[in-house]
Amino acid sequence: MELQFKLKASFKTSADASGAKDLIGAYFDEANQGILTRGAPEGQGARIVEWGLEGDRINLTIESGKHVRAHDALLRLRKPLATKLGKDFHIGIRGIDVGSFVIRIPSEKPLGEIKIPYVNSMDYGDGVITLTLEVEEAELDNRVPDRILTLMEDKIAAQTYGGKAEHWSLLWESEKKVHRFSEDPTIEMQKRGWLKRGASRGQWIHGPQSTRLFRVFEKIVIEELLDPLGYREMIFPKLVPWDVWKKSGHAKGVYPEIYYICPPKTRDPKYWEDVIDYYKVTHEVPTAMIKEKIGDPIGGMCYAQCPPFWVYLQGETIPTNEFPLKVFDHSGTSHRYESGGIHGMERVDEFHRIEIVWAGTPNQVLSHSKELQEKYKRIFNNILELEWRKAWVTPWFMAQEGMTGLSEGKDIGTIDYEAPLPYRGEEGDWLEFQNVSVNGNKYPSGFNVKCQSGEELWSGCSGVGLERWASVFLAQKGLDPENWPNEVRERVGELPKGIRFL
Amino acid sequence: MELQFKLKASFKTSADASGAKDLIGAYFDEANQGILTRGAPEGQGARIVEWGLEGDRINLTIESGKHVRAHDALLRLRKPLATKLGKDFHIGIRGIDVGSFVIRIPSEKPLGEIKIPYVNSMDYGDGVITLTLEVEEAELDNRVPDRILTLMEDKIAAQTYGGKAEHWSLLWESEKKVHRFSEDPTIEMQKRGWLKRGASRGQWIHGPQSTRLFRVFEKIVIEELLDPLGYREMIFPKLVPWDVWKKSGHAKGVYPEIYYICPPKTRDPKYWEDVIDYYKVTHEVPTAMIKEKIGDPIGGMCYAQCPPFWVYLQGETIPTNEFPLKVFDHSGTSHRYESGGIHGMERVDEFHRIEIVWAGTPNQVLSHSKELQEKYKRIFNNILELEWRKAWVTPWFMAQEGMTGLSEGKDIGTIDYEAPLPYRGEEGDWLEFQNVSVNGNKYPSGFNVKCQSGEELWSGCSGVGLERWASVFLAQKGLDPENWPNEVRERVGELPKGIRFL
Repeated sequence: MELQFKLKASFKTSADASGAKDLIGAYFDEANQGILTRGAPEGQGARIVEWGLEGDRINLTIESGKHVRAHDALLRLRKPLATKLGKDFHIGIRGIDVGSFVIRIPSEKPLGEIKIPYVNSMDYGDGVITLTLEVEEAELDNRVPDRILTLMEDKIAAQTYGGKAEHWSLLWESEKKVHRFSEDPTIEMQKRGWLKRGASRGQWIHGPQSTRLFRVFEKIVIEELLDPLGYREMIFPKLVPWDVWKKSGHAKGVYPEIYYICPPKTRDPKYWEDVIDYYKVTHEVPTAMIKEKIGDPIGGMCYAQCPPFWVYLQGETIPTNEFPLKVFDHSGTSHRYESGGIHGMERVDEFHRIEIVWAGTPNQVLSHSKELQEKYKRIFNNILELEWRKAWVTPWFMAQEGMTGLSEGKDIGTIDYEAPLPYRGEEGDWLEFQNVSVNGNKYPSGFNVKCQSGEELWSGCSGVGLERWASVFLAQKGLDPENWPNEVRERVGELPKGIRFL
Repeated sequence: MELQFKLKASFKTSADASGAKDLIGAYFDEANQGILTRGAPEGQGARIVEWGLEGDRINLTIESGKHVRAHDALLRLRKPLATKLGKDFHIGIRGIDVGSFVIRIPSEKPLGEIKIPYVNSMDYGDGVITLTLEVEEAELDNRVPDRILTLMEDKIAAQTYGGKAEHWSLLWESEKKVHRFSEDPTIEMQKRGWLKRGASRGQWIHGPQSTRLFRVFEKIVIEELLDPLGYREMIFPKLVPWDVWKKSGHAKGVYPEIYYICPPKTRDPKYWEDVIDYYKVTHEVPTAMIKEKIGDPIGGMCYAQCPPFWVYLQGETIPTNEFPLKVFDHSGTSHRYESGGIHGMERVDEFHRIEIVWAGTPNQVLSHSKELQEKYKRIFNNILELEWRKAWVTPWFMAQEGMTGLSEGKDIGTIDYEAPLPYRGEEGDWLEFQNVSVNGNKYPSGFNVKCQSGEELWSGCSGVGLERWASVFLAQKGLDPENWPNEVRERVGELPKGIRFL
């Protein structure tokens, strides 16, 4: 069986259209041969299978397969029919009433219990899922049936094939190195008083030694990569409202990992008096009472770092010679609700990252990605002296929308940088410690940014995770500066003393 | 009338205590003269006004004024009575039952409708508020009645006198200056493409020019103040859980201005499927549905910047020669839910601050505060060349707990740095652009931090708000670097070009 649509609907007319019956019949016959087949393979268009007049309504039943979907067929009919009725009979079409809308989708198995907006019922039998939709004209105009169908097809595919696998293919790897250190650096750092756990989950407080190392990493990136490549520093916002994630695509899938932000419903101190009184009497914070007093979530804490930057460009047309545009931000923290359990600094809920963003024509973006990769290679080989590799993986922007596989554009995608952590042993997982990503037109298109020349705009981004760099560097080199590469040791200078405790 | 307590309660005994009646009576008489008057002025102790035996209970009624409060009296009686009953009659005291507990508090007016935990009823008549409490032994042990009383007294005082006013007294002011610029700098910055509004309330995206100025301010603070004074950089966490705000005192009053953080109830993708489906079909984020799927708030986004640092020292004893301890952080954003309406950069919901923290003996902390003030004076007079003043104000840690007035310790408190914004006119409010605060033992005590020598520990903090510095500097000096003081102009170098739009 193939995909089937069956739509019963009415055109509401401004007067009884009995007088126009012949004209309507002739037009529907013509449409079945013409307008409802346009773009479909021979014999696979939509068909009006039944119709009739009833007061000020033209009732019709349309059946279709996947090519000219029944709801598209209905919308295609409206304007030409209105023109004919208007010209000869002075009758207008006032709107559309949807009577019933059934979609039959082939599927080897039923889906579980799921509730989809505008879906009234979902039944399974004989290899077919039957959906009845409850939609009106506005939903047809907004393409809701198409979105429902895409969603169903994704769910069926995910169920049948388990989804495509995360992609991974090696692009380059350094020579193997002998590592003289084999401890877990986070544990060593704690022993030496370089850092301590913060009060919240997956959060660290960095002492002077650890902070110095982070600042040296930043200095390396600025001096060896950002300045030579002509980057300008900006300050990107760190509270991210839904509107940004709708445009960036994150609203499609990022919910399980967000730290959500809710504002107070009001700043009125009187409104908060009972919470304050409760705390003062019990010395406990009444979190359930507070949840009632805060608004719905307005968004979340910074997750990916570049989306809120794009608001700066949103809706703008930019002079052609402004490209390639190159900016970076390192003005605050990112937060992800990671899986529980005890992790070290290599897997944290709160982390620090330099976010690097570039935009331009597809050629500019691709060629700049190569420049960046060359700079990183020099840094990892000649300055940090790491053992590392890079791999072509499922693009981050797809992964963060809950997708797997690869982008359709062969040049569009993400390069992950990975390194072995000697304490995990020969067979241990390598750690992803940064990425370089070419995102195609996703952001310029999502945020409606145009180039003066009319050329297509693409963009790229690269996130340098300082906790990840430190995890890799310290795991391979240990905590003693005398064992660090010269280039790092010189930039660190004398490691500051930590705070001592008895 | 004065404060009155009337408590009816029972000691639960391990056996009928009729045989000990004389002993109990004699002890209560003795207590009325002795243990229940200890610490009170003549004739103003608590009194057992009635008592009797009933099965395995000793019932008693205690009345008191403010000096030995009835519930304290009850607790004072327990141990000596248990000793006597145990020794002579082998009877133990198993616990306390509270029958009724009434507190009468003088007040010129009734309070409004308020609901206080453990308060069953609140009535007003003849200049007296009468509270009946519903408490058990555990609440007496936890001093709940005292906390309720303090809360009531604060509310009555606030109602009667409107609370103490915010304190303000001038400490120092610079000479008046002629300002050649009189525009609102935020508006000018927007016109010149230095910054744009972010997608969230009170949030800005800083372009390359604005960001450069912020970084120059940071460089000035680091080179002229932090490095010469021996500060070490750390990285303080930016998600602040309740536990930190309980210890810092913010849990007493900060609720109206917090951006609250709620985690997902689970990372299970299945749990979030309906939210994702809803979004994919409607292209709207279902915020009410999400609010049901997230946990109670775990805390909020960084508000004051130093509290989460103290977790690093929490519960520790620190070598004496580690003091004065001096650290700073500028690793991320702070967020406050400010009042609505259109504001410029001088009043934002999301801002950037260098937080400076020092700790030591009271003398060390006070003398370091003076050193800091000298450095700031030099910066504002000789580098930024500002018109400014400093004032002794209600300490920030009191203000953030909802209090006004001054601290009891005369050296403990906050110095606000204020500057005129010429565009506001001669009579316009000056802008508070940073502070220096000596916080007494509040933090070492709240986070249980000890000095090896046993000396008392104090701390101080100073917040450098970069948006505030920029608001003052640009309002007084304008946006053209050629009108800026040499010391600033040299550090800025050539101002980077902004992103141009058509």
